[in-house]
Amino acid sequence: MMNYSVFPIAYVSSPYSQKFGIARQPSLVPNAYAAIELNRTFGEESVRGLADFDYIWVHFVFHDAINEGWSNMVRPPRLGGKEKKGVFATRSPHRPNHLGLSLLKLENIEIGKTVRLICSGSDLLDGTPVLDIKPYLPFIEAHPEAKSGFAVAAPSLLRVVWQPENLPDKLSHRLRLLIEESIAQDPRPAYQDIPHREYVMRVENQEVRFFIQENQATIIAIQKINQAA
Amino acid sequence: MMNYSVFPIAYVSSPYSQKFGIARQPSLVPNAYAAIELNRTFGEESVRGLADFDYIWVHFVFHDAINEGWSNMVRPPRLGGKEKKGVFATRSPHRPNHLGLSLLKLENIEIGKTVRLICSGSDLLDGTPVLDIKPYLPFIEAHPEAKSGFAVAAPSLLRVVWQPENLPDKLSHRLRLLIEESIAQDPRPAYQDIPHREYVMRVENQEVRFFIQENQATIIAIQKINQAA
Repeated sequence: MMNYSVFPIAYVSSPYSQKFGIARQPSLVPNAYAAIELNRTFGEESVRGLADFDYIWVHFVFHDAINEGWSNMVRPPRLGGKEKKGVFATRSPHRPNHLGLSLLKLENIEIGKTVRLICSGSDLLDGTPVLDIKPYLPFIEAHPEAKSGFAVAAPSLLRVVWQPENLPDKLSHRLRLLIEESIAQDPRPAYQDIPHREYVMRVENQEVRFFIQENQATIIAIQKINQAA
Repeated sequence: MMNYSVFPIAYVSSPYSQKFGIARQPSLVPNAYAAIELNRTFGEESVRGLADFDYIWVHFVFHDAINEGWSNMVRPPRLGGKEKKGVFATRSPHRPNHLGLSLLKLENIEIGKTVRLICSGSDLLDGTPVLDIKPYLPFIEAHPEAKSGFAVAAPSLLRVVWQPENLPDKLSHRLRLLIEESIAQDPRPAYQDIPHREYVMRVENQEVRFFIQENQATIIAIQKINQAA
């Protein structure tokens, strides 16, 4: 058996510096923008023609999960953490080779000292190493009627409220949406249901505190974090 | 910059032992079946639940292209080899890390001494190392209306005829279909148009000779190959 050595062709800048709160699949949080910055090896030529595609495949490494290893069976959050599935029947990060695959909406290509692919609907952790970028081919890869086991549809969203109501006043509209969308998809581990338990989530440079009761999330505090290097 | 080491979790058995004639994308040749045989490390547990999905993502290595290196720009066959595109705007095998991605229809899971995933519509070379298997999530990954640049639709197919007509009599119906579908998708490099040039293609244990004129391929000979180890 032969091993292969692969190298990052790019790294991701994302509003999520921690795993907690990241969308479990791409596109669930439309306002989660990520910038995929190519290594200097790859100039404008390497992406020529890519802007004609709406979506791109991002092959990446679940770098934050490598130390946690992998298992033959995992508990998908979609099943409330109660049922085990084979790792190859899930998109769990705890998989052999720790390879991830995300379909992101390509919003813009910035050509400067480096090439940056600006994508929306990202589910990627800040600093994620990217191994490849490919165009999405709908005539081959769009099968809306495909059977998809336990992952039958997008999970239902929580209602998100701010308490007190003036809490988000200091935020930009974009950041407010990003926080609301991130929390709406229910970041609790395996649908943990502990009313009044306070959760803390980092989004960009903000630390957000909230609790979840039934189908509503209530944001109770928000604080700017001092970004230490 | 950190490198990552990845290992094959499986290998592919496919009717194609040479690159010439392989479908340029999955699903274009429905009768091209491939068996993805998992390493003994991965038993039945690792695929539990996978049979509930119609399609699987196969992450693989373009092992046959590694020695040919990669380029920043490539000539997609869809553009007649006349125009260059950035490698990340194509699905060319000549890419950094030589990572491939195919969406295959999962027909059956065979559990024996090893686990074998039987897939149709394969575009994989025999012996391809597989790095990961993932379920296809239509609610996230089906975007039939997505813009897709130069790859706007499935390429048009050639008409395939046998000359003499009794040529395929010794073939099974399945193998006959496989040969016809493989040739119909026009395997010529970059739409090379040399009438009466004879092409030779291997499919399973058969060597097939044909030429292409306008929109018709004519199969003129077929011969069983002695399989040397």
